[in-house]
Amino acid sequence: MKIAIDAMGGDHAPEAIVKGAEEAVANIDNLHITLIGDEEKIKACLSDPSRIDIIHTDEVITADDEPVRAVRSKKNSSLVLMAKEVKENRADACISAGNTGALMSAGLFVVGRIRGIDRPALSPTLPTIDGRGFLLLDVGANVDAKPHNLAQYAIMGSIYTEKVRSIPNPSVGLMNIGTEEGKGNELMKKAFSQLKEAPINFIGNVESRDILSGTADVVVTDGFSGNIALKTIEGTAMTMFSMLKQTFMSSVKTKIAAGMVKSDLKGLQRQLDYSEYGGAGLFGLASPVIKAHGSSNSRAVFNAIQQAAHMVENDVSDTIKTTVESIDWDKGD
Amino acid sequence: MKIAIDAMGGDHAPEAIVKGAEEAVANIDNLHITLIGDEEKIKACLSDPSRIDIIHTDEVITADDEPVRAVRSKKNSSLVLMAKEVKENRADACISAGNTGALMSAGLFVVGRIRGIDRPALSPTLPTIDGRGFLLLDVGANVDAKPHNLAQYAIMGSIYTEKVRSIPNPSVGLMNIGTEEGKGNELMKKAFSQLKEAPINFIGNVESRDILSGTADVVVTDGFSGNIALKTIEGTAMTMFSMLKQTFMSSVKTKIAAGMVKSDLKGLQRQLDYSEYGGAGLFGLASPVIKAHGSSNSRAVFNAIQQAAHMVENDVSDTIKTTVESIDWDKGD
Repeated sequence: MKIAIDAMGGDHAPEAIVKGAEEAVANIDNLHITLIGDEEKIKACLSDPSRIDIIHTDEVITADDEPVRAVRSKKNSSLVLMAKEVKENRADACISAGNTGALMSAGLFVVGRIRGIDRPALSPTLPTIDGRGFLLLDVGANVDAKPHNLAQYAIMGSIYTEKVRSIPNPSVGLMNIGTEEGKGNELMKKAFSQLKEAPINFIGNVESRDILSGTADVVVTDGFSGNIALKTIEGTAMTMFSMLKQTFMSSVKTKIAAGMVKSDLKGLQRQLDYSEYGGAGLFGLASPVIKAHGSSNSRAVFNAIQQAAHMVENDVSDTIKTTVESIDWDKGD
Repeated sequence: MKIAIDAMGGDHAPEAIVKGAEEAVANIDNLHITLIGDEEKIKACLSDPSRIDIIHTDEVITADDEPVRAVRSKKNSSLVLMAKEVKENRADACISAGNTGALMSAGLFVVGRIRGIDRPALSPTLPTIDGRGFLLLDVGANVDAKPHNLAQYAIMGSIYTEKVRSIPNPSVGLMNIGTEEGKGNELMKKAFSQLKEAPINFIGNVESRDILSGTADVVVTDGFSGNIALKTIEGTAMTMFSMLKQTFMSSVKTKIAAGMVKSDLKGLQRQLDYSEYGGAGLFGLASPVIKAHGSSNSRAVFNAIQQAAHMVENDVSDTIKTTVESIDWDKGD
């Protein structure tokens, strides 16, 4: 198995990428990695080049580049060359921690969609109180979704969760503003009907208040609402940690208490760090494409590689293709 | 000034409602209150009946009642009779901690809209790190909003924030999935154009990640996304408090530390308790209608009464009416 990785994407590139790749080949049998980026900089971080190839390029897509334009004009960027490795069958999957929009564009225009899937979905796994985690999709690949897009997300999320996360018959919920059938906007009411007919374990509407408590293994929503939910979780957690810090710094007594629970609170922060679950998959593409978090350290890169490897081993893309082909879709919605 | 209150709505009714009303007449000059509900139960909690009238009724709309149907069929319920007090000019504003949907229906069908406002907006004030707070609207009165609805929310929120919260020239942000102009779904792109033309201090798109940091005084969104954001904030905060509790209970050392910071952590929880800012206003109705939180204690009820009184004193409904009439709305959106 070969995985192509954009060595220049993310806040800690190329070092975190190279270290994560080395850790992966050391731990995963038969894994070969192609790193794409500045050869000199990559080699400077690489201690053991076995089973790691390098494709050299100077060109990079930055976080500030306009995604679609960048993918079209920077044809020799590490991100576009990475996607080409997959497209031209020299790699089975690819990973970037760089510009999310550019990765989505390269996924769509270079790697290509699975026939029958109209819109791919960006799909991170988020933490729950019990440590089980849940898949949220879409969080922004498609901001004007139609009901049948959501039904396709549900099927893709369900297949991924069963095959890669090893959760049999995963429960699928539709993120809505009430749990009863008939709740929500026009999109969600129509999506509900389609989800009831889909070959999944659909448990109905779930509220965003309950998703971190593990109310469903797969939470389906449109890209706009999913992005709002994801960033609200991040913002609220950040705000609470910062208030907590203020609270602990407010007096001598609280400072002493802070010292006593410091390592335990770090554990809490780790519990909320969703890079432990890998990156966000771009589901619906011909081969696995993973967006690792921009702030990924080598551990997060390793987790994303392991995730991509599991997706390849378990034929996730092919299973999605076969399942989607077997359904008579109502796309006039 | 007279404020009508549904004495039977909320988890702690009628006691919390009656106590909050007593506190309000004791603290706010010229305030008269009409409590609507079971006279015997109300009197059992009432120690001083001065400036407090009671309208007796046995009928109650419960949390489980289907809102629109309940308002139509339970014509003698405390909630509907309360709204009639406003409609028939015997009260200047009304408050309920009961069924939110039923209050929205009674607001719309009994109290009535301001001419020119197409859809009312449910508008809570939420906490920020710096304690200033911000207004989020709509959080669910209208789940299929049009661009001009959002522009009207912006104007209503701006007027409320300036007049009642005494924040001059409040900043107004559009909740979106990126800060640059051109981001978001079709609704948000069109709303952006209309917000640029509105008589407000529009600062552009804001991300849900930043709203608790106080990125804008008024955050405008459609009722579906607003409800998702609100419940995600609540769910994330709840989850973190519960993880924090687990962390503090995990060993003897952490239990000792917990004892040392207990009161400080209670303060943190209070900082996040948005009933301190009053209830959620239903903006766009002919007179102020306030939804107090279902779990309101007497303090939260007092805050909601004070908020309603400020809205009446400062002519919020009339100012909204005059401002909305002065604009040539593009409603073909």
